Amino acid sequence: MRPNYPFNCWYVAATSGEVGEDFLARRLLDVPVLLYRRSTGEVVAMEDRCIHRAFPLSAGRRDGDRVVCGYHGFSYEPDGCLAHVPSQENLPPGARVRTYPIFEKAPFVWIWLGEPGAAALRPPPRVPWYGDGTGWASTDEVLKVGANYLLLQEHYLDLTDVFVMHPEVVPPDIDVLPALDEVEVSERSVSYSRSMPPSRLAPWEADVTGLPEDTLATRREEGRFVTPALHVQHYSIDLDDGSAHELLRIQGFTPETPDSTHVFLQMARTYAKDDERVADFLRTMFHDWALRDSVVLEAIQSRLGDRGEPRRDINVKADRAAVRARRIAMDMVDDESGSFVLNWKL
Amino acid sequence: MRPNYPFNCWYVAATSGEVGEDFLARRLLDVPVLLYRRSTGEVVAMEDRCIHRAFPLSAGRRDGDRVVCGYHGFSYEPDGCLAHVPSQENLPPGARVRTYPIFEKAPFVWIWLGEPGAAALRPPPRVPWYGDGTGWASTDEVLKVGANYLLLQEHYLDLTDVFVMHPEVVPPDIDVLPALDEVEVSERSVSYSRSMPPSRLAPWEADVTGLPEDTLATRREEGRFVTPALHVQHYSIDLDDGSAHELLRIQGFTPETPDSTHVFLQMARTYAKDDERVADFLRTMFHDWALRDSVVLEAIQSRLGDRGEPRRDINVKADRAAVRARRIAMDMVDDESGSFVLNWKL
Amino acid sequence: MRPNYPFNCWYVAATSGEVGEDFLARRLLDVPVLLYRRSTGEVVAMEDRCIHRAFPLSAGRRDGDRVVCGYHGFSYEPDGCLAHVPSQENLPPGARVRTYPIFEKAPFVWIWLGEPGAAALRPPPRVPWYGDGTGWASTDEVLKVGANYLLLQEHYLDLTDVFVMHPEVVPPDIDVLPALDEVEVSERSVSYSRSMPPSRLAPWEADVTGLPEDTLATRREEGRFVTPALHVQHYSIDLDDGSAHELLRIQGFTPETPDSTHVFLQMARTYAKDDERVADFLRTMFHDWALRDSVVLEAIQSRLGDRGEPRRDINVKADRAAVRARRIAMDMVDDESGSFVLNWKL
Repeated sequence: MRPNYPFNCWYVAATSGEVGEDFLARRLLDVPVLLYRRSTGEVVAMEDRCIHRAFPLSAGRRDGDRVVCGYHGFSYEPDGCLAHVPSQENLPPGARVRTYPIFEKAPFVWIWLGEPGAAALRPPPRVPWYGDGTGWASTDEVLKVGANYLLLQEHYLDLTDVFVMHPEVVPPDIDVLPALDEVEVSERSVSYSRSMPPSRLAPWEADVTGLPEDTLATRREEGRFVTPALHVQHYSIDLDDGSAHELLRIQGFTPETPDSTHVFLQMARTYAKDDERVADFLRTMFHDWALRDSVVLEAIQSRLGDRGEPRRDINVKADRAAVRARRIAMDMVDDESGSFVLNWKL
Repeated sequence: MRPNYPFNCWYVAATSGEVGEDFLARRLLDVPVLLYRRSTGEVVAMEDRCIHRAFPLSAGRRDGDRVVCGYHGFSYEPDGCLAHVPSQENLPPGARVRTYPIFEKAPFVWIWLGEPGAAALRPPPRVPWYGDGTGWASTDEVLKVGANYLLLQEHYLDLTDVFVMHPEVVPPDIDVLPALDEVEVSERSVSYSRSMPPSRLAPWEADVTGLPEDTLATRREEGRFVTPALHVQHYSIDLDDGSAHELLRIQGFTPETPDSTHVFLQMARTYAKDDERVADFLRTMFHDWALRDSVVLEAIQSRLGDRGEPRRDINVKADRAAVRARRIAMDMVDDESGSFVLNWKL
Repeated sequence: MRPNYPFNCWYVAATSGEVGEDFLARRLLDVPVLLYRRSTGEVVAMEDRCIHRAFPLSAGRRDGDRVVCGYHGFSYEPDGCLAHVPSQENLPPGARVRTYPIFEKAPFVWIWLGEPGAAALRPPPRVPWYGDGTGWASTDEVLKVGANYLLLQEHYLDLTDVFVMHPEVVPPDIDVLPALDEVEVSERSVSYSRSMPPSRLAPWEADVTGLPEDTLATRREEGRFVTPALHVQHYSIDLDDGSAHELLRIQGFTPETPDSTHVFLQMARTYAKDDERVADFLRTMFHDWALRDSVVLEAIQSRLGDRGEPRRDINVKADRAAVRARRIAMDMVDDESGSFVLNWKL
């Protein structure tokens, strides 16, 4: 069955910190990929499979910037061209392993696994909340979830589960989430926003902002399906004096297989920027959050193939954004049904 | 491939003792089912899957007699109707999770997973050997076997294996089982019976009846494929004075998947009814018996998909009842090839 | 999918030492086979499955030379004929379990799983390097590798991997393997040979031959795909005085399944024939060698089903013999597409 993710899309392949001198082998969109950093610092991504006998190149070694296969010693330049075959002097003309366009902007290394040549037409989305001078402090984490990537996108586009799954994060005085202010849909993205009535702070909010628990604040919550590969959530605690405490949860969702997803999670905040305790607190809180979400998403994934009644999900108002996001992703998949897909995916 | 069990048939879902306040999640005919008991005592059976996002309802909680999903908090009445969605006030009209007809008569809770409305046409078989005033004393046990349910039915319809697998249960002086007296076939059931010549008692017979080992007795053995879901065996030790010591092995066979079967085993006897030692003895004996049978049935199951020669079982006289039982079950499956199956099973 | 091994071919089923009084159950060409030795010493091979209810005969017991099923006690003569059914006096006419032609010549027990009657037309290949009076001393070992048998054949037909995978075995002064002298192809076999320029001895060569490390020697290396089931390699260290130190690696490759292979390995040498230390050294060296090869072959096997780019192996000169061997095997498979295959394999 054809997977439900588009290939013509930039996906996060790794965080900048994960890719170095050593080979990193990672399955992305069900393609085995080898990642490493050249001596100049640029990241190389190539199919993790020797063109001679299908041996994984990641089990080989580096020779300078070249990749040497651990089986018969075939070696490849960083651009994928076959450079040397130990058992003969001349080389099969044009022999090369496939390489993939890479775009690095910390904390993410983006990869293009789609139609060669089309990468330049659609630059990767901007993630400008990382590093000195941006006004944001960050922590990040890499996770893997045993569920299809769209289940994750949909999950984070509808936060009405927090009352059931994460009640401790909900501000006091709030018993039900207000309806969405709006769901905004462009050709390729979906956003929702929601304003919450004034309420005192939840314990975690007081802890990370340093404000007293009885501070009255309103909150703005925004979520955005930027592309099938990127989800950005914004949570702002707004005080009467006009000041705002902002928090971002940026998630790169990259299918490992049709049934599992790499999650590249960045949390960024505008407050307590040099406070390691707050950084640790948030890291732990979002880690636990992600684990609880994983359990639910993996339970759903395991039920998708079930017999019994055919799948017939019922949607409610809170699903408006999720339903649109799924449609965009599936449209992108449908757009790929031409010869590219026939050549590369079947 | 279409499974070889009929849906339009009552199956044992659980024993009465297994179903209580807490949720019991069980896969039956490859359908995930949630079972629990209402405050009134009635058993509820619903598909174990929220209609919103396929999350297993058994991972949620009760709110009185309602079932609350652990994901977004959708809650359902015991009849399956959606009762509450936390993120909105009104409900999608007609939204409900499927529930299944239940018929409880201790020790068994029967379920109908077939065509809705057809349950009433075929009441579950009677199992009248349980409880005070019936003249029978019982023990019961629930097992799971990694083999198709028809392998179990066939196994217990041909007891000629006992000389090889359970020689210690055979009375002395009996070297070979007499041929079957008769195999009786109705539209939906198969029975066989067999009379055994006079012989002294096997040690277990003497132990449970309290008779001396040199007592001469004849035995009547009867087995009955009552439905694809129920098998009843009767073993009577008959003395010259006209008295009989009767033992029943009642087995509910409920497919968990096409390759595994829940076994709901009840043993009932007319003798030593208040003797806990005899109860324990029989429980242990039939437990060991069932385990040895499991090993054989699972070995056969693992061979059914084998290459090599195509399956071409040879049948002998002792298989007459088993062959008929398989035909009845397959006829029932064939009868279901209409729109019901298309809607519910594919 | 149809497997890529021919059935009309003799394969090694076991070593002579493995088959004795006790039942040996082994899957060969995905067929479950039972092997044992009659009281006369002859080896019996029968399908490991009772004709009555598919139970593995290997879980039963012997009664003299007969095989008794552990389920209902059906028993079979060594020629496969049903000999006894406990539950009745007469037997179904012609009932028998399939048996397979066996040819034993130590150290190998060969089996013919193909078209009955065709075994005699193609005798098994000769392996005349075992036992007193042959001039060879031997050690042997049985292994299992999680890869298709043709990956093993191809692997040993192209030894240019040794520089990468086993550099310690290469003689000093040799930086690159010379090109093959020739690749010789007959209708059913492929051989290659290669001569190496004079060089001093590698440490292992000095150790096993007892010659000083600075001895100058040439080497002849020959490899032969004898049949899909047999690979023979010859490695000769030739001195100026005309003397030769010869070593054979004889490998029986028998598919267990399409994805795994039994390897029956015999190493034979013309030198240090009574020296147990040398025998141990070679046994250990080839064992380690085989394990390292297994890791590579299993990694390739696991990549063969991968998505991403379709498989498009590039071949180089060193692959000439391997490519021919694959073609011979596939031709043999294609030759079997008649009614025999329809009857026996589908």
